[in-house]
Amino acid sequence: MTVIGEIGERGLIERILKKIEYKSERVILGIGDDSAVLSHCQENKMLVFTTDMLHEKTDFPEILTPEDIGWMSVAVNLSDLASMGATPLCFLASLGLREDMSLNNFDGIIDGINECCNEYEVEFVGGDIDRHSELTIVGTAVGEAERIVKRGGANAGDLLCTVGCLGGSAASLNITKENKEMGDDLRRAIRERISVKKPRVREGIEIGKFATSSIDMSDGFAASLYEISDKSGVGFVVEFDELPVDPLVSDNDLDDLLYGGGDYGLLFTVREDEMGNIEEIEEKEISVVGRATERREIILRRDGIERVIERRGYDHMVKR
Amino acid sequence: MTVIGEIGERGLIERILKKIEYKSERVILGIGDDSAVLSHCQENKMLVFTTDMLHEKTDFPEILTPEDIGWMSVAVNLSDLASMGATPLCFLASLGLREDMSLNNFDGIIDGINECCNEYEVEFVGGDIDRHSELTIVGTAVGEAERIVKRGGANAGDLLCTVGCLGGSAASLNITKENKEMGDDLRRAIRERISVKKPRVREGIEIGKFATSSIDMSDGFAASLYEISDKSGVGFVVEFDELPVDPLVSDNDLDDLLYGGGDYGLLFTVREDEMGNIEEIEEKEISVVGRATERREIILRRDGIERVIERRGYDHMVKR
Repeated sequence: MTVIGEIGERGLIERILKKIEYKSERVILGIGDDSAVLSHCQENKMLVFTTDMLHEKTDFPEILTPEDIGWMSVAVNLSDLASMGATPLCFLASLGLREDMSLNNFDGIIDGINECCNEYEVEFVGGDIDRHSELTIVGTAVGEAERIVKRGGANAGDLLCTVGCLGGSAASLNITKENKEMGDDLRRAIRERISVKKPRVREGIEIGKFATSSIDMSDGFAASLYEISDKSGVGFVVEFDELPVDPLVSDNDLDDLLYGGGDYGLLFTVREDEMGNIEEIEEKEISVVGRATERREIILRRDGIERVIERRGYDHMVKR
Repeated sequence: MTVIGEIGERGLIERILKKIEYKSERVILGIGDDSAVLSHCQENKMLVFTTDMLHEKTDFPEILTPEDIGWMSVAVNLSDLASMGATPLCFLASLGLREDMSLNNFDGIIDGINECCNEYEVEFVGGDIDRHSELTIVGTAVGEAERIVKRGGANAGDLLCTVGCLGGSAASLNITKENKEMGDDLRRAIRERISVKKPRVREGIEIGKFATSSIDMSDGFAASLYEISDKSGVGFVVEFDELPVDPLVSDNDLDDLLYGGGDYGLLFTVREDEMGNIEEIEEKEISVVGRATERREIILRRDGIERVIERRGYDHMVKR
């Protein structure tokens, strides 16, 4: 087995260059120089940047393949752009690699990055390679938007909507921890949820034209609601029966559903009279799950009973 | 002692927000949303991006203070922009932190980031915070340029120039490894070299108007020469007596001088008839050290004797 420590930085960069497929007209200079260069943007558009750190112990459970890991490192960043309503343009990756990583696994990660970049028409333009004690991938994505959607724009009366299901990623992690025998279908379903197989890029761009506020739900549904609530100065009433529960969530596991992190769906608000535009969006898995209120509480309504949703969720600094 | 694991992600972000000083008119949305947003760029300018991973075991020897580490994580990225001739605009940082890091050390790192951003008028606009087994900081810098300088533009006959001294960072690491008693002055000199106290931002912008090729010398003088040589299709003759040797380099330690990594000076080429413009640049520590040749060899001339400079330097994937 060849390990990457034998190949060296330059050799690895050569391998990456051979694998990159999607090329953008906007990119003047990609991998191989001190920086990547993009042609000037259209005058009416803003530039949008995001970066996300993923690493083995926290983010890459064993069930993931190297391809999943590569894909995920792009997808989580595209999700952050999507929540702003931005169109992604290019991607950079800082790769912290163990020197005893097999060349096969390295190739797999790059294949995954390439696949996700291809799918969403994003050019992989650069980054950094470093020896590290723990596999660590920090992606940076650059996008542009004519209109951006912040967390702080919701108004009382707006409809509260989700894109994608809730609780799937937390439920997937629980299932893998139980270490059950798993069929291929379940295994694939779990891998897809954890590795963010569907960053909501296209939906984010369309929703971004109309939404009043938006966030990706990577820290959990409740935490995301509180973010919009804090920044917008509104509360919410959420209808339990309207929540799009991921099929992997056990019956009534409210914890996964409301507080589980790792779901990269979108949570957004929209004026009721704009909802028609949202409903026309294709490829949608959009649910109207509640409404913004002047009262600052965040309420879950279920079978006629109202209770406050707790202010908690995934905190990247606190051990689970 | 308070450790950051007690504070949580949100608390740490609040602390960062209180410390950030430099605000740019170009930034529409900074820390606190899913992405950072910049207003559209001027029509005639290109956008330039770079990202760099630093981590404890490889990049932060014990002599560095938390402030040095924060400064360095910005400066290495500004250096990459400088080598393209780009003006930096904003900075993002993914912080991988041990949960038992003291809050004091965290504050120190943020102070260092803030200080470097202030010095070069760069806004700290976002990033990510994550628990990690090893302190890992991945910075991303965004800049713009009217004209960019690549590694591949040197022509035979061009003058070869450096900004800054050679070998200082490698010599500094050697001194710290010898564990000698150190006075305050030496200690400071070493910290300044390792933590890239002088990224060549202003020089890079000025040189970028005239240079035919450019690179930062972070992987060593020889490796950087070979990069320009390979990409430009030229060789070089280097005059030993003209090399700006860092005062910390031991007499005749050719290894530190030619092959030592971690010096973030610039190496560039310029047409001889443009050299007058370069000489007018202020704050300069510019040396003319040789000339590009049609012959593809890279030669060091010393006391009338010519020998080939070896093709080696700092490889981030190979253990030292």
